[in-house]
Amino acid sequence: MNASAGAATADAVGVIATKRDGGELSDTQVDWVVDAYTRGVVADEQMSALLMAIVLRGMSPREVARWTEAMIRSGETLDWGALDRPTTDKHSTGGVGDKVTLPLAPAVAACGAAVPQLSGRGLGHTGGTLDKLEAIPGWRASLTRDEILAVLRDVGAVVCATTEGLAPADRKLYALRDVTGTVESTPLIASSIMSKKIAEGTGALVLDVKVGSGAFMKTEAGARELAETMVRLGTDHGVTTIALLTAMDRPLGRAVGHSLEVAESVDVLAGGGPDDLVELTVTLGREMLAVAGVGGRDPADALRDGSAMDVWRRMVAAQGGDPDAPLPRAAETHVVPAPASGVLTRLDALAVGVASWRLGAGRARKEDPVSAVAGVEIHAKPGDEVTTGAPLLTLHTEEPERFARALDALADAVDVGPPGSVPDTLPLVLDRVAG
Amino acid sequence: MNASAGAATADAVGVIATKRDGGELSDTQVDWVVDAYTRGVVADEQMSALLMAIVLRGMSPREVARWTEAMIRSGETLDWGALDRPTTDKHSTGGVGDKVTLPLAPAVAACGAAVPQLSGRGLGHTGGTLDKLEAIPGWRASLTRDEILAVLRDVGAVVCATTEGLAPADRKLYALRDVTGTVESTPLIASSIMSKKIAEGTGALVLDVKVGSGAFMKTEAGARELAETMVRLGTDHGVTTIALLTAMDRPLGRAVGHSLEVAESVDVLAGGGPDDLVELTVTLGREMLAVAGVGGRDPADALRDGSAMDVWRRMVAAQGGDPDAPLPRAAETHVVPAPASGVLTRLDALAVGVASWRLGAGRARKEDPVSAVAGVEIHAKPGDEVTTGAPLLTLHTEEPERFARALDALADAVDVGPPGSVPDTLPLVLDRVAG
Repeated sequence: MNASAGAATADAVGVIATKRDGGELSDTQVDWVVDAYTRGVVADEQMSALLMAIVLRGMSPREVARWTEAMIRSGETLDWGALDRPTTDKHSTGGVGDKVTLPLAPAVAACGAAVPQLSGRGLGHTGGTLDKLEAIPGWRASLTRDEILAVLRDVGAVVCATTEGLAPADRKLYALRDVTGTVESTPLIASSIMSKKIAEGTGALVLDVKVGSGAFMKTEAGARELAETMVRLGTDHGVTTIALLTAMDRPLGRAVGHSLEVAESVDVLAGGGPDDLVELTVTLGREMLAVAGVGGRDPADALRDGSAMDVWRRMVAAQGGDPDAPLPRAAETHVVPAPASGVLTRLDALAVGVASWRLGAGRARKEDPVSAVAGVEIHAKPGDEVTTGAPLLTLHTEEPERFARALDALADAVDVGPPGSVPDTLPLVLDRVAG
Repeated sequence: MNASAGAATADAVGVIATKRDGGELSDTQVDWVVDAYTRGVVADEQMSALLMAIVLRGMSPREVARWTEAMIRSGETLDWGALDRPTTDKHSTGGVGDKVTLPLAPAVAACGAAVPQLSGRGLGHTGGTLDKLEAIPGWRASLTRDEILAVLRDVGAVVCATTEGLAPADRKLYALRDVTGTVESTPLIASSIMSKKIAEGTGALVLDVKVGSGAFMKTEAGARELAETMVRLGTDHGVTTIALLTAMDRPLGRAVGHSLEVAESVDVLAGGGPDDLVELTVTLGREMLAVAGVGGRDPADALRDGSAMDVWRRMVAAQGGDPDAPLPRAAETHVVPAPASGVLTRLDALAVGVASWRLGAGRARKEDPVSAVAGVEIHAKPGDEVTTGAPLLTLHTEEPERFARALDALADAVDVGPPGSVPDTLPLVLDRVAG
């Protein structure tokens, strides 16, 4: 026990055993294990055992607060005090067709707030915002801290990769959880999201917690618990934070896949686009302005009058993208017809997400490339009338051998009811959670 | 998901998630994960997450049987069919001062059975049998398979290190569990012990499952569950197996520490030694002969008539040891006096074990060396009369700076009652568990 490696092993086993046996980790234990793991003194196999114990034993509010704090302190924190506007940000827990950030950040910036959105990439069946923007020719995700500040000052909104120095403990833990079956834990998810958002330095934050088959949280109760945990963490750190619980039983909008979603976002910025996507963008935008204390302008107006589009074009150009370049399109498409005539009563979000993933839009491992053009176009949403044989979905891919497995994923994705049927879908916004 | 590493990761996460969510692993899942881990395809951090899920979710009898089988099949199995005598072995779950193997194996061999005892080293506060024997000048633990067979044939008993090829999955898992807080699991302990003992090829097996503060299992209920699981595993594999639950609330015998325990074992082989050690040696020896179907001779006689000592001397010599060489002794000793006069009613096994460990007898990590001479001599056992200031314990070490921490461990180790007190100790043998 005198050698330092032996002492660290003994300490690590002590921390693991505390949680394994249902105890509460002390502040000292949390601080030590997060820091020692970040420095490589606690090994991956020790941390994964601790993570599984946390998945199965849970964490108290005090523990999750301290864990989040330790992850924030593992790296640098950003500060936008030099800006002349309040900062506000949005984070979604991830959904199928969720491209809201693309029209939302410019719309909110056009209304007078600054939006510093540092984002991640997608893993699994939901696409990442950076993957979507990379469908734009020339656009690059990585900016330095000074570049981020410059774009925020000049344009008002920036969507880019998190900087290397931000919450390195979370980056390491996130990769480990992905391969060890330890993703599914409310305290671990909440601390992962909130450590990054708090370190990012936003003054106010709106959380979009998705509920339904295509979301991480399948039930409203689970989503509410996650939302409440995150709102408490943000509030305790001086970030004005609220959460909306929103529907993810069906895809959001009518496009799933990176290039397809950028095109749909541009439609919204041009004053068009699908109703549900516009409604959610406006609702979240109003919340973002409210928590930042910025009044006077409505994001709905910014979408209608072209001011959001102006910010979008400058934001894309500031990161090397050409807002006028044609978006890439897939070489191969395959139409899925409606199986019956009547009213579409169900279009399962998870099935569409998995189909898009299998067409090439998603990655199995974080180092995998994604196809910008793969995805699913949706011709009818729940509540719409459909006719047997008419196009319901169009699948897009570069590799036609992928169609078969995508169609497998869609085998039970759709229900059609008789004329006059009302679909049993979730309301677009289920609830609002405030501190 | 097409790359093999991706597929293995997906499979590993699937197995982990099954157990995490309280499901039962299929035979295919168990076979795959044990094999893939042994080959390095499943990573340490994935296996440790699975192990923690097993610690907290448990295993069904079917799962633990399959897990044990998979570990046996990860390597070679030994076969003693070439011998002219039945084989029988004993395994103890580990206790303070438990040197029973040293007089037991020769005594049973002297009665006509062959004892192929492949052993491990100690970790934590209980010493390993190989560490004890290595206190004998010249003795070496490692033998080849042919050498083991030759010693068994010529001498009748062999105590040596497990061969490299035996249950390699268990060796890898054991090291991982040690550093990840995943030791404490009845199915994992049972499968670890029984995979090695079944692969070792013994025809019959007696398990000594210790109960009390100095044992892994603190309660009789926990020890019984472990015993029943192991007896079932052995019986299902055609090894006649029984278990005794025996006392480990106080140390066994009057010597703790490698060289001290060898000396005490030689006393027993010479027909002397402490009553409890002799009684347990004889009881276990009779059980070993009974399960092997060898009648006619009593181990008590073999200890009395010198025939066990003859086997001991040849057994030690066969592995390079000099049975006549003086055993090493510590340069420094420190006497702990009795704190009061009366009857010693408690001498805590764990406290004495930890003291011995701190004096240098134990290791924190498997690669640490141990001191052959460190340990604790016990001058009074529970039930004995003691007098204030008279020697109760003598601590032995090479490094006198270790006395202080050893004394700390002993601070609450002893109770002395008024004359006539009867100590509230466990019976030496609590129960017998058969198939």
